[in-house]
Amino acid sequence: MHETSGPSEQDRPSLEALTRGIVDSYQTGLRAEHIDATFLPSRDAAIGLLGLLHELVFPGFIGEQKLTSVNLLDHVGSIVAQVRESLEGQVDAALRYSRNLERDGQGDDCARCTELARRVTDVFLTRVPEIRRLLSLDVQAAYDGDPACRNTDEAIFCYPGVYAIFVHRVAHELFASDVPLIPRIMNEHAHSKTGIDIHPGATIGESFFIDHGTGVVIGETAEIGARVKLYQGVTLGGKADALTQAGRGKKRHPTLEDDVVIYANATLLGGDTVVGAGSVIGGGVFLTASVPAGHFVYNKPQDLKYRSAEKLKAVQAATLNG
Amino acid sequence: MHETSGPSEQDRPSLEALTRGIVDSYQTGLRAEHIDATFLPSRDAAIGLLGLLHELVFPGFIGEQKLTSVNLLDHVGSIVAQVRESLEGQVDAALRYSRNLERDGQGDDCARCTELARRVTDVFLTRVPEIRRLLSLDVQAAYDGDPACRNTDEAIFCYPGVYAIFVHRVAHELFASDVPLIPRIMNEHAHSKTGIDIHPGATIGESFFIDHGTGVVIGETAEIGARVKLYQGVTLGGKADALTQAGRGKKRHPTLEDDVVIYANATLLGGDTVVGAGSVIGGGVFLTASVPAGHFVYNKPQDLKYRSAEKLKAVQAATLNG
Amino acid sequence: MHETSGPSEQDRPSLEALTRGIVDSYQTGLRAEHIDATFLPSRDAAIGLLGLLHELVFPGFIGEQKLTSVNLLDHVGSIVAQVRESLEGQVDAALRYSRNLERDGQGDDCARCTELARRVTDVFLTRVPEIRRLLSLDVQAAYDGDPACRNTDEAIFCYPGVYAIFVHRVAHELFASDVPLIPRIMNEHAHSKTGIDIHPGATIGESFFIDHGTGVVIGETAEIGARVKLYQGVTLGGKADALTQAGRGKKRHPTLEDDVVIYANATLLGGDTVVGAGSVIGGGVFLTASVPAGHFVYNKPQDLKYRSAEKLKAVQAATLNG
Repeated sequence: MHETSGPSEQDRPSLEALTRGIVDSYQTGLRAEHIDATFLPSRDAAIGLLGLLHELVFPGFIGEQKLTSVNLLDHVGSIVAQVRESLEGQVDAALRYSRNLERDGQGDDCARCTELARRVTDVFLTRVPEIRRLLSLDVQAAYDGDPACRNTDEAIFCYPGVYAIFVHRVAHELFASDVPLIPRIMNEHAHSKTGIDIHPGATIGESFFIDHGTGVVIGETAEIGARVKLYQGVTLGGKADALTQAGRGKKRHPTLEDDVVIYANATLLGGDTVVGAGSVIGGGVFLTASVPAGHFVYNKPQDLKYRSAEKLKAVQAATLNG
Repeated sequence: MHETSGPSEQDRPSLEALTRGIVDSYQTGLRAEHIDATFLPSRDAAIGLLGLLHELVFPGFIGEQKLTSVNLLDHVGSIVAQVRESLEGQVDAALRYSRNLERDGQGDDCARCTELARRVTDVFLTRVPEIRRLLSLDVQAAYDGDPACRNTDEAIFCYPGVYAIFVHRVAHELFASDVPLIPRIMNEHAHSKTGIDIHPGATIGESFFIDHGTGVVIGETAEIGARVKLYQGVTLGGKADALTQAGRGKKRHPTLEDDVVIYANATLLGGDTVVGAGSVIGGGVFLTASVPAGHFVYNKPQDLKYRSAEKLKAVQAATLNG
Repeated sequence: MHETSGPSEQDRPSLEALTRGIVDSYQTGLRAEHIDATFLPSRDAAIGLLGLLHELVFPGFIGEQKLTSVNLLDHVGSIVAQVRESLEGQVDAALRYSRNLERDGQGDDCARCTELARRVTDVFLTRVPEIRRLLSLDVQAAYDGDPACRNTDEAIFCYPGVYAIFVHRVAHELFASDVPLIPRIMNEHAHSKTGIDIHPGATIGESFFIDHGTGVVIGETAEIGARVKLYQGVTLGGKADALTQAGRGKKRHPTLEDDVVIYANATLLGGDTVVGAGSVIGGGVFLTASVPAGHFVYNKPQDLKYRSAEKLKAVQAATLNG
């Protein structure tokens, strides 16, 4: 603890001086200010949209309960109206914002942005039934894939892997419509809640299940077929030479064909790495090359060393680690 | 960016049409709707209960501060009253809900559910002092086990492992009383906050400590003795043949006897895998067989390759991965 | 499900009895009560401070949008005033609180604590422009290091690694001023949101980037140079002999010199372990010894076993694990 005595009121820096020091730092060309940026999308609004859509996709589970056949239409109608208004506004803001970035602030008069935002919003809302169809298959895959799961409702209520694929299927729709920023905000919200980091650009087939999920990373250019199952800590990542801006736009992440299973903490890397249909990758495998269909790959059992308790004290400092 | 121009107002799909399309999709037998389900427990209520119980178990740390010997009794009394009312209602809803699932909607007249909910709630509240006793030993284990921990208060304030075991000891009580769904909602809330995924069915002895914790997975049928310590990324999981609904009800996850330590990112699998008392598992070990008491197990040091900077550029694309 | 019928109202334990049982348990010397502790800092206040500081450091991104050159000074001034009042109060409470712990409750008349709290607060607010300078370099490093990142704004909006280093740079300032508890509360809040666990004591150079981040652990005595890049699941941890209170105050965690890259899920352990400038550690490497400058280290490719589909059923139970 500092032993010096504190300042008396009069010799303290004034609020004005402290404020001025901080505001001045906004002028020094750092990449951290957004003054006079009128078209920034709102993270809170993007996350609020996920809440409305979660209720739309899983009615009665989330948000308003006691839904009945009688009040259903009114209730859903009001959610649809809220989603349309908010999504349209956010997409418009995101389009003008990225246009501003490209043209150093000429996005203000962007009638095309407004029209595009309407179109993207209408297309998205028309796709909601298809998103529900895909999610219902994902929920079934979660139940089928986990003996601890008592029924499909539990998967919807509790499973982080189900929440992550819900957010991904929503964000991927917007990403496919070239909406800037908002899909990434949505997926990072899911990442924060679940520990599952899926880039909205990744393409994922139906009946997809991630169990437990913490530490899963699925890169932007990963391609995943139907009925694929992943466990916690699985990385579908890029090789070192693809991990700078030079890699932008290239296929950097693996491809998994249909019916592939990848067990806990396996790491698969590289845009040329393809796991063939029906193949299985064992826990902890570190893979940077392709695997043919119908095979499985696992580590040669590690050469484990055993020591009796007597030797423990001496050796552990060097060999046992946490 | 799509180059087509947007729609004019009149040729946009109407809110009614969009709503109808979504509501129709609720009728198509997907596993994602809960219309007319009057007995669904509420996730918000279950998480609210955890907040009240956290304050009850660690008074003065969480929620109301400035607790004094004078206002204590009134304050605790009001929390106990809230817990009793909310828990009783949620357990009742969960029991009727699962009865409905089993009997296709015959749970409405379930007087037994109401009586059972009362009994479960009373038993739970009577058990709170014992839960506090166990948690106080867990807090001490956290302090003793981490040199970065300045005092036991810091463990209560900050340690995700302490929060995770708090939620587990609460949820395990309800799980042991056959309460459906609510214990899983509680543990997945802790999983979301801490990255530690403990199934409420797991049995865990006293003085338990998980340090850091992100990525830890403890399966439903794991059995853990007293004074056990785990680090981040440890999995106590099931083998592949136990990872479908066929595995339901079997012992699928490992047993750790007293005084076992498992270091970071070790993976232990299988219901027959037993780690004997006092044994230690080193970081990164992948273990699918039992270890006798008083031993420790670690990987043979890996055959690491070194390259000087010159060769780096050429080789890294193939060998260095992220 | 228990088959016994529930209790009738009169034979239920009374609220008074349940409350008394819990309150009595507060008197039994457990390490879980904080009655009559008038100087406990508030976790909510510490997290609220992070929200204000996030807005101060990245104006226009977070909180109030539509910032203009006109309203900027007033807006920032009001935030600075809130931060000063709240931080001063929390630091004062934390100082009195730890003084109480040391002296069994003699901290009430601690004029020095109040003066010290003022000084720490003023020093901190004077340092905000420097914190912004460091964070702007971290944001640039995130953009440069990830081809999926479209612009630096996306890094500020979405990247957990950017949020984690923001919180760390704030908490490390307070930690360096010997503020108890609050820095740890802040870093564990970031850990909960991002899965990245950085102890506030760790020293981290400029242009630091963690990609994806879930599962990263950086210990209290780790030292990290400039332009270092880490990926998900990397541990900079202590060896087993340093993982009890006996290790307090020792250098227990690794040192990374400038321009080091450590790929996904590598584990580095020990206070004597130094990775030399420009060296690179491959994915999954388990390292407990030093590496000279300008080298890279990767695992000898694992001896993977392939099996065709026919043999899969028979072998998987024993060898494929999740």
